[in-house]
This record gives sequence, C-alpha cells and structure tokens, in this order.
Amino acid sequence: MSTRFRHAALVGKFHSGGIRQQLESIARFLVERGVRVSLEQETARHTGIDAYPSLDADALGETCDVAVVLGGDGTMLGIARKLARHGTPLVGINEGRLGFITDVALDGFEPALAAMLDGDYDVERRTMLEGGVQRNGSTIFEGFALNDVIVSRGATAGMVELRIHIDGEFVANLRADGLIVGSPTGSTAYALSAGGPILHPGIAGFCLVPIAPHDLSNRPIVVPDTGEVSIEIIAARDASVNFDMQSLTSLAHGDRISVRRSEHHARFLHPRGWSYYATLRRKLHWASGTA
Amino acid sequence: MSTRFRHAALVGKFHSGGIRQQLESIARFLVERGVRVSLEQETARHTGIDAYPSLDADALGETCDVAVVLGGDGTMLGIARKLARHGTPLVGINEGRLGFITDVALDGFEPALAAMLDGDYDVERRTMLEGGVQRNGSTIFEGFALNDVIVSRGATAGMVELRIHIDGEFVANLRADGLIVGSPTGSTAYALSAGGPILHPGIAGFCLVPIAPHDLSNRPIVVPDTGEVSIEIIAARDASVNFDMQSLTSLAHGDRISVRRSEHHARFLHPRGWSYYATLRRKLHWASGTA
Amino acid sequence: MSTRFRHAALVGKFHSGGIRQQLESIARFLVERGVRVSLEQETARHTGIDAYPSLDADALGETCDVAVVLGGDGTMLGIARKLARHGTPLVGINEGRLGFITDVALDGFEPALAAMLDGDYDVERRTMLEGGVQRNGSTIFEGFALNDVIVSRGATAGMVELRIHIDGEFVANLRADGLIVGSPTGSTAYALSAGGPILHPGIAGFCLVPIAPHDLSNRPIVVPDTGEVSIEIIAARDASVNFDMQSLTSLAHGDRISVRRSEHHARFLHPRGWSYYATLRRKLHWASGTA
Amino acid sequence: MSTRFRHAALVGKFHSGGIRQQLESIARFLVERGVRVSLEQETARHTGIDAYPSLDADALGETCDVAVVLGGDGTMLGIARKLARHGTPLVGINEGRLGFITDVALDGFEPALAAMLDGDYDVERRTMLEGGVQRNGSTIFEGFALNDVIVSRGATAGMVELRIHIDGEFVANLRADGLIVGSPTGSTAYALSAGGPILHPGIAGFCLVPIAPHDLSNRPIVVPDTGEVSIEIIAARDASVNFDMQSLTSLAHGDRISVRRSEHHARFLHPRGWSYYATLRRKLHWASGTA
Repeated sequence: MSTRFRHAALVGKFHSGGIRQQLESIARFLVERGVRVSLEQETARHTGIDAYPSLDADALGETCDVAVVLGGDGTMLGIARKLARHGTPLVGINEGRLGFITDVALDGFEPALAAMLDGDYDVERRTMLEGGVQRNGSTIFEGFALNDVIVSRGATAGMVELRIHIDGEFVANLRADGLIVGSPTGSTAYALSAGGPILHPGIAGFCLVPIAPHDLSNRPIVVPDTGEVSIEIIAARDASVNFDMQSLTSLAHGDRISVRRSEHHARFLHPRGWSYYATLRRKLHWASGTA
Repeated sequence: MSTRFRHAALVGKFHSGGIRQQLESIARFLVERGVRVSLEQETARHTGIDAYPSLDADALGETCDVAVVLGGDGTMLGIARKLARHGTPLVGINEGRLGFITDVALDGFEPALAAMLDGDYDVERRTMLEGGVQRNGSTIFEGFALNDVIVSRGATAGMVELRIHIDGEFVANLRADGLIVGSPTGSTAYALSAGGPILHPGIAGFCLVPIAPHDLSNRPIVVPDTGEVSIEIIAARDASVNFDMQSLTSLAHGDRISVRRSEHHARFLHPRGWSYYATLRRKLHWASGTA
Repeated sequence: MSTRFRHAALVGKFHSGGIRQQLESIARFLVERGVRVSLEQETARHTGIDAYPSLDADALGETCDVAVVLGGDGTMLGIARKLARHGTPLVGINEGRLGFITDVALDGFEPALAAMLDGDYDVERRTMLEGGVQRNGSTIFEGFALNDVIVSRGATAGMVELRIHIDGEFVANLRADGLIVGSPTGSTAYALSAGGPILHPGIAGFCLVPIAPHDLSNRPIVVPDTGEVSIEIIAARDASVNFDMQSLTSLAHGDRISVRRSEHHARFLHPRGWSYYATLRRKLHWASGTA
Repeated sequence: MSTRFRHAALVGKFHSGGIRQQLESIARFLVERGVRVSLEQETARHTGIDAYPSLDADALGETCDVAVVLGGDGTMLGIARKLARHGTPLVGINEGRLGFITDVALDGFEPALAAMLDGDYDVERRTMLEGGVQRNGSTIFEGFALNDVIVSRGATAGMVELRIHIDGEFVANLRADGLIVGSPTGSTAYALSAGGPILHPGIAGFCLVPIAPHDLSNRPIVVPDTGEVSIEIIAARDASVNFDMQSLTSLAHGDRISVRRSEHHARFLHPRGWSYYATLRRKLHWASGTA
C-alpha cells in the first residue's frame, strides 16, 4: 500500500525566524534523493527562497504526492486542512519539541525522512470536521477543522446559553463559557484543558465538552460522528465560533452552528513503528515507569 | 424488523419486598394478551409465585422470545448478561425511579407494554465486555460485563500499580486506586463518578478511567473496542477485579486481566420514540430548560 | 449584639419587570413597623416610586442602619460592594429562586422580616477583595469584589500566559484561558464551574482557580487571605480583568493585577437558624437524603 | 527565635536497603559538630547500628531538641506524628527524590544541615488531625493524622453512604467510594488524586473531598478547622477508616468517625529561603517557565 514519493510540497511555519536555512536543507535533501520540490507560496514569500516553484495550497494538492511540513502541530493542522480534499499525505518535522502529529525531529531528520520517502511509513487517517453558521435561513459562515469547533462567550460577557441537537434530536441546554465539539485529533488540544477525555484517532466519534458549565452535572459526552451536531444560540452577548483558528464573532440569538464529519480526511505519515500511545505519554508527561 | 412476542420470561429484583403482587399483575397482563409466561427460578423461589413454570436463565434464553424485567438497572444488567448469548431482548419496568435502561414505569405500565408486545418498540444493542484473569499462564477467572471491568486496590492497602497494553502495544503505567474499563453502558455508572466521559451507546469504544490517579495528568481515554485491553498487576497488596458484580480478590503481582468486546450483545427494547439523551437529562438532573 | 433597626435602605433589581408593586409592598411593611425608608436612587428612577426619599449608595450608607434588597445574588452583591465601607448590614429577599445570600422568600416575607427587624437574626461577615491594575508604574484601574477577580483571554484569542506571585514570592506561571481569584463568597460562583473547591465563609483564604489550564497538573489552590496576589500578564492578546462585573479590557504585556483582602466586609443578615450548608445543599441539588 | 541544637534524634526509613551507611555518615557528621545522637529504636534494630543509644519515640521526644529523618514523606510523617506532643522539630533528608516535606538532599547534605544546626532555618508548623470512632456510645478507636482521615468502602463492596455533620450541624449525605478529611499537609497527598484543592499550610481549614461521589454535583469543600467533623456510617459493607496509615476495618452501620484539629502540631525545619510554592512546582511538574 505504501509508495515512493516523487513530488513534495514543502511548507514551513511562517512566524519562525531562521527557518530559511532549515527549509533549504530539507529541500536539497529531497532533490538529492530524486524528489521534485514545490514550495508553498506563503512559505516562499516569508523566507525569500526562490530556487523552487512556489504554488498555493490547491495547486500543491493537485501536483504533489506528499507534503513535508516544518513546524509544530499548528502549522501541520493549517496546511492539512487545506490539502485534505486532495488526499495529500503529510510528514511533519518538528524543530525540537515533539508534537502530537509532527514526529520527525529536525535534528538528524535525514534517515527518518529517507525511509519514509522510500515507502517505509505508517499512515494514519484523521477525521475532519466541517460545518457552518446559519442565520435567518442563510449560511453566513463555513469552515473546516481538524481539531475542534468552539462556541464561546464574549470576553467580558457572561455565560452563553446554548441548545444542542444531534440529527434533530434534542440533547441538552447548556449554560457555560462555551462548548467544544472536538475530533479525536482535537481531544488532546483545548478540549483536554477543558476536562474532556482523550479519544484515540480510531474512535468514530466527537467529544462535546462544556467549558466551565454552570450546571455541575454537565459532563463531557462522546457521540457518534455520523450525526450532525447543531448548536443554537439561545442567549449570548458577543459570542463567537472558531473552526480551528478561523473565527466568526458577534453571534446573535437564534444563530445555529452545525458540525458534521467531513467527507475528507487528513492523512499523516509516521516513521514505521510509530506509536500513538508513546506520543501521548511523552506529551502528557505520564510517568510511564519501567516499560 | 419488529415482532409480536409470544413467550415472555418474567424476572424480578430479588431483594425487593412486596414485589410478588406486582409481578403477578404483570404476569396476568401478559397472559391476558396471549403471551405465555415463564418465571426466572430465583424470582420464583424468592416470591413464592408458583402459578407459572420456573426456569433458569439458560432455559429462559432457549424458550422465550422476550424478557420482562421488574427492577432497577442492576437487576436488568444481571439478567441481560445471562441472556446475551441467546439474543433475548429485554424490556425493563422500574418501580418508580427511572433507570438508564429500565424506562417503563410500573405505575400504568399496561399501555406501554401492550404496544411493545405488539411490535411497536425501538431496539438498542449494547456492547458487552468479556475477559478473564491469567496467572502463570493459566486462566483462573472468566467473566462477562455489561457495565465495566474494575481493577482496584484493597480496602486498607495503598495504590495499585498497573501496566496497560492494548493489542500488545504498551499504553501506560498507572499508579492509582484502580482502573475502570467501561463500555458505553458502563460510562454512566461508576466510571462517571470517577470522572470519565459519557459514551453514547453507538460509540464502538471502551473508556479507560483511572480512579484517583497519583499522576495528575492521567486522564480518561476512549479506545476502539476492537482491541484487547490487558492490565498487568505490577504492585498491589490485596487488589481485586470486578466484572460487573462478579469479583476475584487477592490478585497477585504478575496477574494479567484481559478485557475485550464480547461477540454477544444485550438487546434492550424501549417504547417507540425513546430518547437516550432524554434519559441522560433526567438521570443527571441537567437543567434542560425550555425544550 | 443584635439591634432593632430604624432606617432601612430599600434596593431593587433594576432589570426586573413588575418590581414596583413588590417594592412598594415591602416599603409599606417597613413603615408600618416604624422603620423609616429611603430608596436607592437607581431603584427609584427605574420603578418611578417617589413616595420615599431617594439617595445614592453612599448617602444610604451614611444614614441607614440596614439595607433591604429585593432581587438575586447579583443585585445583593452589587449594593453590598457599595455599602461595605459603611458597614451597613443587608437583608436579601428573593423573588422565588433561593440565592446563596438572598434567603428570605418574597412570598410571605412578612414574619421573617419582622423578626429580623426586631433583632432576631444571624449575622455573617463576608470577606471582600480589592485591588487594581498597574501599568508602567501607574495604577490604571481600581476595584472591589465580593465574588472574584478574573483575568481572562480575549474572545477569539489564544491562551493567556500569567505569572503569579504572592507577597513577592513566585508561585507559578500559568498558560490558560484565565485565572480566578475567588473569595469564599465567590467560591460557589464562577470558580465552582471552573473546577474550584467550595470555601466556607469562615475560611480566611482565597482560591486561585485556573480556567482550562494547558498544564494538566495545574490545580486549584487555596492561599491565606493575608497575602497580596499579583498576576502579571506575560503574553496575551486582548485579555481583560473583571472585579465582579466591573471590567478593564485590552490588558497588555507587563500589566500587573493585584488582589488583596479589603479592610471592609459585607455584612449579611439571615433569619435566625440559617444554615450555610442547607443553602449549599439546595443550590447544588445535593441528594441530601433523609436528614 | 532560632536555636542551635544539641541533641538529635536520628530516624531512618525502615524498609530501605543500604540505609545503614547513610545513617552512620549523618550520625558522624552530627557528632563532629558537637551534637549528641540518639537513634530511634526501630531504626537501630533494622540497621544494626549500635554505636548510639537507641530510644523509642517518646523517649526521643523527651530528650532530643531536634529530629533528623532520612527517608521520604511517609517516614517523616510517621515519626512527626509520634513526636508532635513533644514539640520536637524535624529536618527531612531525602535519598534523591524531593518530598513535600523532606527537602534536604542526601547527596551533599552537609552544608545545608550544618547551617540548620547553627540555627539558620525556616520553621513551619503543620496542623494535625485527631479523632476516633464511636460505636454504641463507646470510643473503639483513636488516632492522629498529619495527612488525612479517610473513610472508604470495602474492596469488593459497593458505595458507602455517609452522613456528615460539623459541630452538630448537618452538612450532607454522601454516597461515594469514600470521604477524605485532609489537613493542608494532606491536601497534596491522596486528596489531590481524588480531585481536591491544594491548601497552603497557612490555611486554618480541612478539605472534605468525596471519592468518586455518586452525585455529580458533590464537590470538595474547605471548612474551618475549628469545628469537629462527624461522619456517620449510614450504609456500608466492610467499610474502613484510616488515620494516616493506621486502619480500623469492619465499620458498621451507626459507627461515627469524629475528626478535629489536634492541640499538637508538627514542626518542620527547612533550609533558610525554603519556598512552599517552589516545592509544589517541582513535585507537580508545573511548567513554571521563565521565572
């Protein structure tokens, strides 16, 4: 099932100083191994690297058979979201701090990347969320998210009151700072800080995690990802919704946020033998003892 | 897909006073509607009802096409576990206190039960757990559970130390009062008190919920129910394991508890229009407001 | 130690419709019992009641020996904050929904209020917080709070990073949605939703409760109220601080929020035999069983 | 206020291999600095050290003006409990793993201990709990605790049901795995794992922390340590109570556990400049960033 790759999209974290040399070194390594390189256009613009064609995300998705990303989980999620409809698999190279999904260390990346380019990798599909905001019968916002969709109160406003349905069935009214609808990927992000459970990427479900709920018996719930979650704004001053980092503010009474599983997935490549649980242990500093 | 039922097993909560009259009234109602009645033998013995054949659970499973259970969730789970391999569906009648799975109220049960006997019901399959305890290469205990498998410390002993694997892959070492492996059904039982998430019955996963973990970043995790969870006793004085209410005490260093999804399911019948979320709201006293 | 009261300040919830008649009925009751009545000026303006002198909070504090408040905990806290430096004790009358500190029910308030006016009451002192915001050596904001001081992130911004000192001693750096410094009174408000403990009003401490902390081992901590808590903004986009409901937005890097116990207290009067724990049980819906 | 010490009690963790040499080296260091040494008798018996007088805890308390303890927090708490009524201050030397109260590292202990023996230390008083179990009007058990008093269910039994009073006032009924009454010292021990708050040692309160409570709105509460907490067993099979590590099992319906602040305190000595918050940060692995 694994492939040798021939054309890599190269993407770098935009706000990181000194990334130019590191990207050039990765690019040279790719070219030396017979892999064509195209640079993501924002990356090219910010770093000034002009030795490779630069393309926008859609063009990369159409022409490249792999994306190599230098940066943290945020960078990885940003480009993964854009490449999802093309099915382009992604390899993440971190600059020193292990991410949940960027697991090749920059320092000494060559043998790991070489093996993966030769087809020696584990592939992992991650569910994506998609949805939008409906107001008075019109869709006023649409978005995709790999981590989560978050409805939350305004900064100095009181609680929001939300009414949750799934596939038209009433689930609960919620008074809280907000509500997180998280994918398994998002379950180790903000949802975890808010008290949600960890969902293994193989779980076909979303977690609904209330943020600081007024009602103390409100608990996180995991629901099948085959249903559409609908969140209606019952009362809020200045509430907002985020699909990963894309925001819509000034939500009004009656606005309805819908969230469902996307037909697209993100595809992450890991070095052979990669372990989800090992990543968890290291990221969460579990004292995993002797084993 | 729904059926008219012809032969009902009737089961009652053993420890409940005054249940005789109530069971007799349910039995008469069944007979009047042309349904044969067999009484579960412990129920017969405790209540002294002798007007119907009394059979053990296996014989009931072989001859009856439905079980009508009077009692709480505990009674329901006990008999459901025994009938699971026969596929017998169950209807739960509660004595006044709504259960998660016993949703017909005794007071005025007749129209609800009549409709269900006529085939007007929603059916819901619930995952079961099965597993055992291995010591020195031998299986010293086997069990089934609808709710959960719980490994826990002795009453006056310190923490247990457990090593968790899933399908042979190391997950974590845990020092805690114990560990709960919960099915979606069990997620609203003990696991919820211990801080676990609610799992919708449609989730194909188990929750692993640590009980009072020493390591504060240890969080509940939901894993696919296709894998076998293995829990090795690393250090414990007087630890025990429970498969629902069946216990094995005096676990020793090196004992290994394995838990996997059973090939059998429990099948619960609900009045048409039953809502899982409505039950949640009522059981957890969510202030579900106006809807 | 208890007193007969002679001059009552009467205060009503501003945003409540139909409150005029209720306030007039309380005022008449007071006058009939020989108690002079002065109306809080905002209450007078909103209700149009003009049969009594209307005074601002400070003038009420100087002339009245008790305040009678009709409304919920929010109304009570608002006026209590303003009267604190005058030491005026407060009686809270709720419109039907028991509050933590408004415990006389409007329906049938007469005998309870009569007894309290005659000196038959329990008095309870509640700690108040005071503090401010320092920027570049100047104080740009000052405030009082009965519940809590809350530093929190902007609505669509990421986490704040805060550095906490107490009396100059470094306590912790915190990355989170925010931090609550709560009094015992505030411990049953927002801090409880964010996972904080309940502090009995007799506890001479503040709770520091992180909101959705990034670091999973960050836990609520209770510190002596004799120290000054200082919270420095290390990184934030669009953060804000709230002293109860008074807000300052647009906090910047380097801003320092200080919180200490005020020399003033709020003094709440309760019907004789009032029980803090009974209020807790009813407000939190503890299934307190048979006792 | 600080003193030079002249006669040290030396105490070692009993179950630790290879402790003999380490204790002998500490003893020699003390003698060389003109401090007399007496050995705790269990320590002497287990290690075989016979070069110093060996005394039981009471005799040590009467003759020594300081205790030097080699081991972890458990060893420290055990001897502190016994010395509390003599007021003997304690210095804790850990074998490598920082404790909450054992903060001198064995490796290179000499300069730290020398300074403390010369009177250069911070002293900290820690509240102790005392109480007992009453059955049918008789006291059947009495105990002291520095950490906590824990009432808990039997290993394979269901929940306990407890009724809590404070100074005769009803607080709550609780159905749970158990209840922890923790001192500030105990708040970072088991109570923290069970979801309780951290209490600074300066807080004059106990935390009441339910263990896996059935009622989801049951939350930890901090109550003044001037009151007597009374816990009555309403329903339990095989419940037990622990005062630190001293246990009484087979509690029966109607048994009443009482807990109050002891008139005695533990006195811990720390190297000058010791910080409670620094210990918290290191023990809880707070990512305390740049400061």
